[in-house]
Amino acid sequence: MNIQASGDFDISMLKTRLDEVWKELFRTSTFLTAVGAGETTRSLYASYLIETYHYTRHNARNQALVGVALPGDDPQYQRFCFQHAAEEAGHEQMALHDIKSLGIADLEAKLPEPLPETSVLTAYLYWISYQGNPVQRLGYSFWAESCYEYILPLMGQVIQALGLTSAQTTFFVAHADIDVAHAEMVNAMLARKCRTAADWAAASEVMETSLRLTGRMMDAVHEEHRRLMSGQSERCAFLRDL
Amino acid sequence: MNIQASGDFDISMLKTRLDEVWKELFRTSTFLTAVGAGETTRSLYASYLIETYHYTRHNARNQALVGVALPGDDPQYQRFCFQHAAEEAGHEQMALHDIKSLGIADLEAKLPEPLPETSVLTAYLYWISYQGNPVQRLGYSFWAESCYEYILPLMGQVIQALGLTSAQTTFFVAHADIDVAHAEMVNAMLARKCRTAADWAAASEVMETSLRLTGRMMDAVHEEHRRLMSGQSERCAFLRDL
Amino acid sequence: MNIQASGDFDISMLKTRLDEVWKELFRTSTFLTAVGAGETTRSLYASYLIETYHYTRHNARNQALVGVALPGDDPQYQRFCFQHAAEEAGHEQMALHDIKSLGIADLEAKLPEPLPETSVLTAYLYWISYQGNPVQRLGYSFWAESCYEYILPLMGQVIQALGLTSAQTTFFVAHADIDVAHAEMVNAMLARKCRTAADWAAASEVMETSLRLTGRMMDAVHEEHRRLMSGQSERCAFLRDL
Amino acid sequence: MNIQASGDFDISMLKTRLDEVWKELFRTSTFLTAVGAGETTRSLYASYLIETYHYTRHNARNQALVGVALPGDDPQYQRFCFQHAAEEAGHEQMALHDIKSLGIADLEAKLPEPLPETSVLTAYLYWISYQGNPVQRLGYSFWAESCYEYILPLMGQVIQALGLTSAQTTFFVAHADIDVAHAEMVNAMLARKCRTAADWAAASEVMETSLRLTGRMMDAVHEEHRRLMSGQSERCAFLRDL
Repeated sequence: MNIQASGDFDISMLKTRLDEVWKELFRTSTFLTAVGAGETTRSLYASYLIETYHYTRHNARNQALVGVALPGDDPQYQRFCFQHAAEEAGHEQMALHDIKSLGIADLEAKLPEPLPETSVLTAYLYWISYQGNPVQRLGYSFWAESCYEYILPLMGQVIQALGLTSAQTTFFVAHADIDVAHAEMVNAMLARKCRTAADWAAASEVMETSLRLTGRMMDAVHEEHRRLMSGQSERCAFLRDL
Repeated sequence: MNIQASGDFDISMLKTRLDEVWKELFRTSTFLTAVGAGETTRSLYASYLIETYHYTRHNARNQALVGVALPGDDPQYQRFCFQHAAEEAGHEQMALHDIKSLGIADLEAKLPEPLPETSVLTAYLYWISYQGNPVQRLGYSFWAESCYEYILPLMGQVIQALGLTSAQTTFFVAHADIDVAHAEMVNAMLARKCRTAADWAAASEVMETSLRLTGRMMDAVHEEHRRLMSGQSERCAFLRDL
Repeated sequence: MNIQASGDFDISMLKTRLDEVWKELFRTSTFLTAVGAGETTRSLYASYLIETYHYTRHNARNQALVGVALPGDDPQYQRFCFQHAAEEAGHEQMALHDIKSLGIADLEAKLPEPLPETSVLTAYLYWISYQGNPVQRLGYSFWAESCYEYILPLMGQVIQALGLTSAQTTFFVAHADIDVAHAEMVNAMLARKCRTAADWAAASEVMETSLRLTGRMMDAVHEEHRRLMSGQSERCAFLRDL
Repeated sequence: MNIQASGDFDISMLKTRLDEVWKELFRTSTFLTAVGAGETTRSLYASYLIETYHYTRHNARNQALVGVALPGDDPQYQRFCFQHAAEEAGHEQMALHDIKSLGIADLEAKLPEPLPETSVLTAYLYWISYQGNPVQRLGYSFWAESCYEYILPLMGQVIQALGLTSAQTTFFVAHADIDVAHAEMVNAMLARKCRTAADWAAASEVMETSLRLTGRMMDAVHEEHRRLMSGQSERCAFLRDL
């Protein structure tokens, strides 16, 4: 973290840092560069959605946990946490739906445990939700709700290459629409709740760290898929048929 | 608990049991009988609102905790928990407002810690929210959201006796309106989520136990107020001036 | 709570208050007065041990939770919490053993859920362990580790009346021996950690409240046993054969 | 994770995997290779100890949490968790002591927040302690208690290069002695509690993941130290004087 203690923080500085980290990820992530270079298969798409299912099913929970753990009374922020959690509830079902729509029967019985990198991301999101600066999870929402700006071009490529219908991309496409309103609420809440340099620093650290952990999760998906295809891993053997 | 293991449970049986417990409380509670007999003072009303503030500020939190702790995926119930929590968030501020409106300046600095009986109620609501049968907290909502039917007559008496304006009774009166829709949602959710006799038994046990603990809290308010007025307790000395 | 804010607290004042509450319980508890008057049956003894099993299996857990939740570094107190928890671990097995030794086969399959009053006690012990004043749980240990002074005479009566062997009273008799050293450590820790009137008040409130909730649990055992014997409850039907 | 579902797991397989991961870390870690190549300064040593302090102060807590969260009764394992936690309590004070002994006055006031990578490690250790397979944290203990075998040669180099006295290396040297007995207990407990391939897989995944996260923490220490020395970071400006 290279955040200086200063009162001059605002959302545009978060945004500037976010651009930098995304740029770095697009340059260094094996997953993003491979997909960008056209390595798009249904099994890789499904592999990614499986991990997406795994961390997404915790997102409403850890978002709500912020409101549960809030020290002192702050009805406005607490309400935001619970409302936002309510809106996120069930989004993991979209990821499941999209995987099934690729033609995988009886998916629930086949789902593997999350990859370690997915567990690390999940662990971190709980940790920053139940302790530390109460506003810091907004740093995660800040990038998560607006990530479509960065990844939609790539998703467009994937959709075209794989010939996916809109019924097979509900998580990303529908989610992108849903999250526009969320992103605005998150920005407004950040502006309102971050009152000190320490608040902005905490939100920024969580933004950057959770995005990097997501990057590591994506790269782990890519590596695990490589192992699947080369016969070194049977974890998702059922994806070889796609 | 005198719940038999049977599949014949429905909401009307919860309601029947609830009527019985309320009847018993109206007969045995020192607080309810004293208020019913006309023992209505501003200081007793304020004493009650102080404890109401203390447990109410945890209600949105423990309601949300049910959705956080939910084992497995159940988007519908999870969303209900978070939405309901969002609607309950900040209700404790109404209790604070009503106390202040009685003419108490600088209330926050004067607020005592909760009475032990209030802590016991709060402790129990968290406990039944983070472990055990996930539907059981609906038993608390079942009576809490519909309690106005039972206590509004008494509240009417109190309001008249003390000459309270609607701005001094926001918690109870406004709350009663808000909670009509809640009560319907709670009933619908109970009917949908209670599938086994064990589910109904868990909801019924939580209903009865949390109502009885609320009764004990009310009686503790009454006893503490008696001690205040007889000079045995200085905990809420600032209420003597009302 | 009638604790005044004063710096003059010490253990002897806790002890004085404890004597008063025990005296009140011996006078008002339906369980203690019935047992004192000779109402001693194996089924009542077993009923009590079942609830003892239920709350005791949480005692090591909530004791350890104090050390987990400790804000800031306090190695000495943290070590005490974990050591004490280690020593309490498994004590619930003694209660199970004593019930089985009365001649109940396949007990695990028959064990009912805890009575509501047992759940309330358990809920409270977790609550005061994970939030609030970190020293407050010492107030529970203070009376729990030294309760044998108060209840051993009664236990002696029960043992004689029921002709129980030492292998059928391991929880109480063995426990009494084990807890002498604990009680000394608890007293030393209370003296060391309670530095303000608020600390003593918190420990005293938890002492009194947890003892009263234990009293309510005992009375619930007595009432439930009455219902068992009069055929109104089938919850512990297997105890009728004893 | 390349763990196959098989019943043939035993400790020697954990050990084999551990050797591989350590070898990889000694090859790829910027911190380990730099230190191995003689980049040893007091400020780097202090930087490492600061992060060590930060995660170590959570170790007793998350170890105890395993025993708190244990589903069902398992007195033996529960006792182990609490005893082990008791023995780990306060170890962070050794790290603090060693930093101070380098000549840093008023350290507590200067201590920066943990690096993000340290927070990620801490987050993960809590996560695997309060949910998932109850035996999995043994995988962390397995490598943590026996890490001295791998890093003592390096530590020896550092101690000699910096001319550190035994009073300046209490965390590592004393810790190494203390942990021999721990390591034996951990091995015995692993052998006893891992009964299925899933148990061994869970322990192995936690072993590997927590070691890799520790590696990332070490590399973050190295990078942050480089930034300190090049004037890009003021986070630990007080270390420049060493």
